[in-house]
Amino acid sequence: MKAFSKNQLQRYPVYLKFFKTLLEEGKTCVSSPYIAKCLGYSEEQIRKDLQAVSKEPGVPKKGRDLERLVETIEKFLGYRDSTTAVLVGAGHLGQALLSYPNFAEMGLSIVAAFDSNPALSGRKVGDKEVFPIEKLPNLLPRLNAHIAIITVPAASAQEVADAVISAGARAIWNFAPIHLIVPEGVVVENVNLASSLAVLSHRLNEMLSKE
Amino acid sequence: MKAFSKNQLQRYPVYLKFFKTLLEEGKTCVSSPYIAKCLGYSEEQIRKDLQAVSKEPGVPKKGRDLERLVETIEKFLGYRDSTTAVLVGAGHLGQALLSYPNFAEMGLSIVAAFDSNPALSGRKVGDKEVFPIEKLPNLLPRLNAHIAIITVPAASAQEVADAVISAGARAIWNFAPIHLIVPEGVVVENVNLASSLAVLSHRLNEMLSKE
Repeated sequence: MKAFSKNQLQRYPVYLKFFKTLLEEGKTCVSSPYIAKCLGYSEEQIRKDLQAVSKEPGVPKKGRDLERLVETIEKFLGYRDSTTAVLVGAGHLGQALLSYPNFAEMGLSIVAAFDSNPALSGRKVGDKEVFPIEKLPNLLPRLNAHIAIITVPAASAQEVADAVISAGARAIWNFAPIHLIVPEGVVVENVNLASSLAVLSHRLNEMLSKE
Repeated sequence: MKAFSKNQLQRYPVYLKFFKTLLEEGKTCVSSPYIAKCLGYSEEQIRKDLQAVSKEPGVPKKGRDLERLVETIEKFLGYRDSTTAVLVGAGHLGQALLSYPNFAEMGLSIVAAFDSNPALSGRKVGDKEVFPIEKLPNLLPRLNAHIAIITVPAASAQEVADAVISAGARAIWNFAPIHLIVPEGVVVENVNLASSLAVLSHRLNEMLSKE
């Protein structure tokens, strides 16, 4: 099986959302040129992406069946299985993620949160209980959580990463703006708002300075 | 001036955070091999990145001066100027961003929020007032906001994008999981949690299936 690049993997949820919208609008098929026009990817890229997850070819002049595409991509992304996660850091961002309604349909089930602030312990956020951080080593293995979502400040993120890895987490979704050092056999994916803002600001300034 | 790639731009906030941590630890200089070891980038990449924003060379055996590096990168990223933004969609994620304490040091000032939910109008979140969405066309130009942060559900994101662009926004920081269609002269940067999760899940499953 060919490896998927990060950029390619990032496109599948965008396709999925788009195909679901088309289904809701009553459409049954979609063609690569139409996808290209709406999503801004090249036709060649779209064909490659869809062929990589589905053997079923499109029908000339009609395109690909939308229901089958949705099913195929959902299966590929693991949306039809459930993966268990815990979240560490129940501040503003942590609470937003705990209350985010769309993770369930992505197969992600956040079952518990942890925080070092005693004032948060025992509270429920979006139906999930916040436990004191001291309970993590004991609870994480019992919850069988493979994924840890880290939403603590940068200064404590490495310590939290070490703790969740010791307790058995194999994947870290890191929202703290630092580079985490992890052993082999653990995957890290970063959501770095500062990095995203840097791209936006630079492109904006570039554009404004040309005017 | 050479254009900066997206990946390169995304690295500068990571460098900056790291250099600031080293300064707090009392260090005064940093070498490329040490940065490489801690951040996982290649030495060559680090040298290129730093040379692209600073003409000052490192001192052999000591490295580069940390205070100058912080100053240079902050200036490059526009952290020492202030850019005005508004936020549309004051739900959970919007509220988290409104309360996020780190934007100020990045030079981003969110001055107001808008929401279509009348129950939210007039409320203050993180010191910022939430206005009814109807006031956006009138208020956005008066606030002189170049950036609009979109945290509404996917179904209304395009409509909101059209509205903020009509009102004069030149840059959209889009947190809704859809591809926005915008005219030339407007920049869009997406933060797509579903895409990030897709990368994490795929890498995790790949790793687990090998064991």
